[in-house]
Amino acid sequence: MEVVLIVAGGSGKRMQSETPKQFIEIAGLPVLMHTIKAFAWYASEIRIIVVLPENHITIWQKLIRDFNFTINHTCVKGGETRFQSVKNGLEYVTDTDVVAIHDGVRPLVSLNIISASFRVASEKGNAVTAIPLKDSIREIIESGENIAADRNRFRIIQTPQTFQGEIIKKAYETDENQLFTDDASVAEFSGEKIYLIEGAPVNVKITTPEDLTFARSFLEKIEN
Amino acid sequence: MEVVLIVAGGSGKRMQSETPKQFIEIAGLPVLMHTIKAFAWYASEIRIIVVLPENHITIWQKLIRDFNFTINHTCVKGGETRFQSVKNGLEYVTDTDVVAIHDGVRPLVSLNIISASFRVASEKGNAVTAIPLKDSIREIIESGENIAADRNRFRIIQTPQTFQGEIIKKAYETDENQLFTDDASVAEFSGEKIYLIEGAPVNVKITTPEDLTFARSFLEKIEN
Repeated sequence: MEVVLIVAGGSGKRMQSETPKQFIEIAGLPVLMHTIKAFAWYASEIRIIVVLPENHITIWQKLIRDFNFTINHTCVKGGETRFQSVKNGLEYVTDTDVVAIHDGVRPLVSLNIISASFRVASEKGNAVTAIPLKDSIREIIESGENIAADRNRFRIIQTPQTFQGEIIKKAYETDENQLFTDDASVAEFSGEKIYLIEGAPVNVKITTPEDLTFARSFLEKIEN
Repeated sequence: MEVVLIVAGGSGKRMQSETPKQFIEIAGLPVLMHTIKAFAWYASEIRIIVVLPENHITIWQKLIRDFNFTINHTCVKGGETRFQSVKNGLEYVTDTDVVAIHDGVRPLVSLNIISASFRVASEKGNAVTAIPLKDSIREIIESGENIAADRNRFRIIQTPQTFQGEIIKKAYETDENQLFTDDASVAEFSGEKIYLIEGAPVNVKITTPEDLTFARSFLEKIEN
């Protein structure tokens, strides 16, 4: 069965705002509801798991009532770190599921990306969304100096990162470590070869006020 | 003397639009005029050189009349490539100038960045604007497979990239080569050690319709 595990753990410290960023309203709905809607549009029968920090669950339940939000989902309590939050969510995923792990604050994900992600993960075990770098990059070397690096050698990683249930559940049985910046790095650490699919520049993770401005203008254009 | 060399060479192929992107109007002015204004605000006595493709110069002159744009600048004919365009512009720069080389389609550059850029370049020979990566990255290795890379080791490079005149003019005496993706890589190739200064996520290069949406909403907020 297709499952999406939406991780909405951020506390909003970087947003200069008291409201956690997944709860900020843009184009008439909190960010997290836009994200959930994107997956529900992809397939109404998809199983949706939302991982939230414990102290945000009451806020979320109130928002659900206030916005009369009717898309069915399971709400799971997050952990101290993103790793722990995903691990908690994976307890609701079975070995035979295919699970897309997605940031709660990436509401602009397209149906094409979601669809390719499930298709490739079903075939190959995993599918990780990535885009090329459009700017030059430089590498900081050990001396503290920096040198030009070839941007064509790198990809920026987005979500969804989608996996066969058995593979990702096994991968998350390891202890947390600092190398784990996303789910692909956890799967890779367990020995999986990672498959990239094409993301989109518009599929931003909302972490700054500028990202919010961008997402707002984009969603308002779509909704109108 | 402080000089800014604004490179406006793009043909707009990626913009799904007939208008070259530096000429698209946002918040009441063509993008390129916003960029020029940013540097004129920094210092009214700065010398401004704008490099444009030959076939855009007539359009630009008409825009100057239409928008009654009065900021003084020298218009220089660009070359086949960005490298050649910068080289053409550098003919109007002297060895004792300090020159900020800046993308015509980065209108959101801040006064702080411009100011730091000239200050550091005056002291150290160069100053290259850079920001951290906020997303995970993966590296494509020779087999075509990909592996996790440590994003903390890399910086995304923006403009301005600012240099003492003598240094950058000498660096540009070399033949063009594929490694040259920006001015820092040209200077580095000539033996210069590169100094990074802190850029800003908002200082985007407008290359896609999404970038344009972002810049528009941002500039409209500032201008109002």
